[in-house]
Amino acid sequence: MHSQGSLRIGVIGTGGMGTRHAMNIHRFVNGADVAAVYDLDQARAQRVADACGARVLDNPRALIQNENVDAVLIASPDETHAALTLACLEIGKPVLCEKPLATTVPDAERVLNAEVALGRRLVAVGFMRRFDPPHVAVKHAATGGKLGQPLLFKGVHRNASAPYGTTGANILINSAGHDFDSARWLLNEQVQEVYVRGVCSRADASPGAQDLLLVVMSFANQRMATAEVYVNADYGYEVSAELVCQHGTVVTEQPDAALVRANGQRGYSVPNDWLARFNEAYIFELRDWVDSIQKGQPFHGASAWDGYMAMLITNACIQSLQTQQIVAVNAPQTPALYQ
Amino acid sequence: MHSQGSLRIGVIGTGGMGTRHAMNIHRFVNGADVAAVYDLDQARAQRVADACGARVLDNPRALIQNENVDAVLIASPDETHAALTLACLEIGKPVLCEKPLATTVPDAERVLNAEVALGRRLVAVGFMRRFDPPHVAVKHAATGGKLGQPLLFKGVHRNASAPYGTTGANILINSAGHDFDSARWLLNEQVQEVYVRGVCSRADASPGAQDLLLVVMSFANQRMATAEVYVNADYGYEVSAELVCQHGTVVTEQPDAALVRANGQRGYSVPNDWLARFNEAYIFELRDWVDSIQKGQPFHGASAWDGYMAMLITNACIQSLQTQQIVAVNAPQTPALYQ
Amino acid sequence: MHSQGSLRIGVIGTGGMGTRHAMNIHRFVNGADVAAVYDLDQARAQRVADACGARVLDNPRALIQNENVDAVLIASPDETHAALTLACLEIGKPVLCEKPLATTVPDAERVLNAEVALGRRLVAVGFMRRFDPPHVAVKHAATGGKLGQPLLFKGVHRNASAPYGTTGANILINSAGHDFDSARWLLNEQVQEVYVRGVCSRADASPGAQDLLLVVMSFANQRMATAEVYVNADYGYEVSAELVCQHGTVVTEQPDAALVRANGQRGYSVPNDWLARFNEAYIFELRDWVDSIQKGQPFHGASAWDGYMAMLITNACIQSLQTQQIVAVNAPQTPALYQ
Amino acid sequence: MHSQGSLRIGVIGTGGMGTRHAMNIHRFVNGADVAAVYDLDQARAQRVADACGARVLDNPRALIQNENVDAVLIASPDETHAALTLACLEIGKPVLCEKPLATTVPDAERVLNAEVALGRRLVAVGFMRRFDPPHVAVKHAATGGKLGQPLLFKGVHRNASAPYGTTGANILINSAGHDFDSARWLLNEQVQEVYVRGVCSRADASPGAQDLLLVVMSFANQRMATAEVYVNADYGYEVSAELVCQHGTVVTEQPDAALVRANGQRGYSVPNDWLARFNEAYIFELRDWVDSIQKGQPFHGASAWDGYMAMLITNACIQSLQTQQIVAVNAPQTPALYQ
Repeated sequence: MHSQGSLRIGVIGTGGMGTRHAMNIHRFVNGADVAAVYDLDQARAQRVADACGARVLDNPRALIQNENVDAVLIASPDETHAALTLACLEIGKPVLCEKPLATTVPDAERVLNAEVALGRRLVAVGFMRRFDPPHVAVKHAATGGKLGQPLLFKGVHRNASAPYGTTGANILINSAGHDFDSARWLLNEQVQEVYVRGVCSRADASPGAQDLLLVVMSFANQRMATAEVYVNADYGYEVSAELVCQHGTVVTEQPDAALVRANGQRGYSVPNDWLARFNEAYIFELRDWVDSIQKGQPFHGASAWDGYMAMLITNACIQSLQTQQIVAVNAPQTPALYQ
Repeated sequence: MHSQGSLRIGVIGTGGMGTRHAMNIHRFVNGADVAAVYDLDQARAQRVADACGARVLDNPRALIQNENVDAVLIASPDETHAALTLACLEIGKPVLCEKPLATTVPDAERVLNAEVALGRRLVAVGFMRRFDPPHVAVKHAATGGKLGQPLLFKGVHRNASAPYGTTGANILINSAGHDFDSARWLLNEQVQEVYVRGVCSRADASPGAQDLLLVVMSFANQRMATAEVYVNADYGYEVSAELVCQHGTVVTEQPDAALVRANGQRGYSVPNDWLARFNEAYIFELRDWVDSIQKGQPFHGASAWDGYMAMLITNACIQSLQTQQIVAVNAPQTPALYQ
Repeated sequence: MHSQGSLRIGVIGTGGMGTRHAMNIHRFVNGADVAAVYDLDQARAQRVADACGARVLDNPRALIQNENVDAVLIASPDETHAALTLACLEIGKPVLCEKPLATTVPDAERVLNAEVALGRRLVAVGFMRRFDPPHVAVKHAATGGKLGQPLLFKGVHRNASAPYGTTGANILINSAGHDFDSARWLLNEQVQEVYVRGVCSRADASPGAQDLLLVVMSFANQRMATAEVYVNADYGYEVSAELVCQHGTVVTEQPDAALVRANGQRGYSVPNDWLARFNEAYIFELRDWVDSIQKGQPFHGASAWDGYMAMLITNACIQSLQTQQIVAVNAPQTPALYQ
Repeated sequence: MHSQGSLRIGVIGTGGMGTRHAMNIHRFVNGADVAAVYDLDQARAQRVADACGARVLDNPRALIQNENVDAVLIASPDETHAALTLACLEIGKPVLCEKPLATTVPDAERVLNAEVALGRRLVAVGFMRRFDPPHVAVKHAATGGKLGQPLLFKGVHRNASAPYGTTGANILINSAGHDFDSARWLLNEQVQEVYVRGVCSRADASPGAQDLLLVVMSFANQRMATAEVYVNADYGYEVSAELVCQHGTVVTEQPDAALVRANGQRGYSVPNDWLARFNEAYIFELRDWVDSIQKGQPFHGASAWDGYMAMLITNACIQSLQTQQIVAVNAPQTPALYQ
């Protein structure tokens, strides 16, 4: 069932992330509907379609072009993001692409250039932390004046576990992009230089594997950032973002529901993954994206430029990790479209 | 604009609470729409109607009976709740009535009896804490087995300020009902006896005014409850619920977004009111209520029986406060409809 | 080895508490020495004497009268406290008596009357919470003016486990006295009325056993207090004291050393008992007591009057628990010696 | 008054730190006495001497050599530390030298070599964090096995304010040494490489001034460390140390006494300086030092080797900051005396 006047969204990719997005639209975003879904695994796609009252299409490009699809949400594997986003740009359909926007700098650049050439912003990138209430509170505190200028961003990003053989480059592409985006968003300055160190936490890891990275970024105008990314943290999934400002600091609080005292401990449950941790952020991101399309107001999340910059930093970090050197980041001027 | 197949809700009362409910439906409850609104202040009603694409009706009973209204949400002044809820029952429309269900025991009884006579549950009562993630986490911990049986409920309920002249009875009717409902829901036993003490925090208060109450409730099966309700707490709005269980305890955590260090302090902002504190709970309550109507599944919130029991305890507490005695609560058997 | 000019202390009772006191003097209270120890178990006494460079005496009264003992610390079983304290008063030696000062009201009264007759304060009572930095911080906040007058004291007192057969009266005598003292100290008003409810947490407890009490106290001048005392809390030992004041609240913080993230949890270790929890308080209490004797300055802890009042409240609470009635507390005027 | 058999300590320097040490000995370290004090400001020295029953000497070297001084505590200005410590070594007296052990690598080396030549450990260095209960709890958790091996140390060090003109080198010498020592102590590996970035938080600072440094250290055996040192943090003094380990993390908890709710905030007071924050650590450090001398047991704090290593890292960090390069730390073999 599709409501008259509601925004008809096509969802590409119905793994964990795509399914969550589809169900969030169906349940929590009034004025929008999941019109079509696609997944390589058609049975999986069918289950989501059934739950949302959508239909299954058997080709992602056909979904993008379908006349009953007003906007596209891309949650398919990372390597497909850039090409599918370009396909949306080609026919002028709004698209929310899960992070990363691309897995290489040239791919990210192609998307960026296509949108700049088009002259209007159709691409949203799923850095959902920008909608997470704790991160939003940090942003507000940092811009509220009371703390003065932000000086240092400190990110912590811990995954419960990573696949065997994960490398530092994998971590930088798949995970650390969030932290690069948060640092840029919260410091609001241009990154200039990066330095990355990594270690491997497990004696039985494959040769060359790394699972704990320490990233240092130097920004323009006396600002710095650092991020710890540990993807075999075992104890659970946890993200935190702190800003050290001139007159004080502000840090995201973990969204704990209840404190339990038992067995000699007083403590909190740690979520297993990002879907549990960022439950609200995903809903607010979709709500804001749909509003931006329906009402013509700006999207408050990440743009193609932000997605491109995250990829540029990722690339410099990979070089730093491999060469064990400090690496400069040479970002182009911010195109007028994103200023 | 109303979507085909969506649940058409009429909202009675567009003060702070009613407006929030209307906007939550409009934005966050897919598959439902605000079809009609009523408020004594028609201009205020019109603003909400405009924001939601609804129309304004000039009579609450006409709204209830309107053929384009599938379900009713009552957020008008407390004294109107029982009569309007009865009007919904009379024509068999589902209704979500804000707490309290009534302001007197006989009124609550009338609603209860009407629903029992009808033989099916149409009434939901807006004790939204049952949908608050912290409270839900306490419920889960208490029923999860690890902590053993709950023994003692401890509620804290603080409002920033109360109107001049507020009495202990006012507090018991307007505020403490939430705590009575939480205690019953979390202890899952019948209340037997209450004892209430109250003081007045302000030297310049009106004669007989009280603003800080301490309630003790004895329940069947070796369980107890206590609630502090302070309605001139000045520092902000805060609610907490703790269960002391056989082998440990669990307590709601305040949903803090960010920790700020500034001016010799490290701390959190306290919200001003319940709309800020229970933001998510209100959305989840509506989502669950709409699902219960559309899918015929049970509503997970409070029933008319729960609303009646809250009123019964409120009444005993008023007596205890006035007589300074321990007062027995003689609850009838739980009707089969609510077992 | 005893230092010239140092205060020579005799310790009666070398169980857990007495041993801790002796070792604290020996290690952390410069200017004082453990001169003599007594315990019914002479081997145990000898071990403490060896560790402190003290000698063992074989009779508590002989210890009190010994000319090489300047001051006495009583940490023997509760029933001996009053008589031994009286023996100290008889010969005019300063004495720090562990709580409770007595186990019956008449006994407490005898000690009080003896000191009043003597006309100077020689008795200190070991309500060590008055020296606990968290409790001291609550006292300071409450008297600092920023929060206005205190209105409500809320105590929480949880022991990991209690002996089989523990009754409500046992809890009131052995444990709750601390909370009565804290309430009086922090509210600084006269108690007027008490109400106590209790339950038993264990299905296999002995008949009449209770292990979880809820105490409500009404004080003069619009003040109230409540205490939860649960002595089979299983998860560990925990004490907390909160003051709800006119313009805000203040509550003791648990003195956690480190936050651990492991196994899906983020939390703190809870201590097993009071020796771990009140480590600093015991040292500061002794330091202040020794200073009060050596420098003639007032002792900042509890007096015989405080010990007597705790017993009076305890007694009223036992009556309330047994009769299930509200019980008035008829305290005499505070003697001039304690004003 | 000096007690027979007690350890007679001479204190050099009676500024804030030296006065605190003297008073701590006098009040909280039984078995030790302040026998003599020296300060360039003799009136200041006299005040401390009066409070402790000590006498004032007019020359630090005379104090060291005085036959009534068994052990020396150095709390004079940083530049005097190495020479005075050497003077103690020359006559074989135990010495507790406040950090830093020296202000240059050659000076630190001289002290180290002198002690190694002597063949026994007489030098203790005042890295008091090793006695701070939160830091000790981190050490215990890290060595307890439950968390696996430590991988990453993360230090935070914030001073309320620094003198106008403070440079990065000043911070590294005066403040960051604590963090270098903590990292070494907690990771228990040899440092190999450092990278330091710094910014200046104030627009009106002197040219070349810096007040916020970010230090990255690479250790042997797949371990890393990072420290943020911000000396104009404005909001107060705060130190934290976290270990990210294979299976979890552990972080020092701030020793908060009480939580206050007032004025729309729920929070804690932040101490102004290290004397308030490390109150217990200073006492425990002295107690352990005195025990180590009197009982011949090992001192559990930092040695001359630790003091030397802190200086070596400091020096590499200064180079990194000045050259903006990664700098290798070439530490000699740990001498047998310190293994």
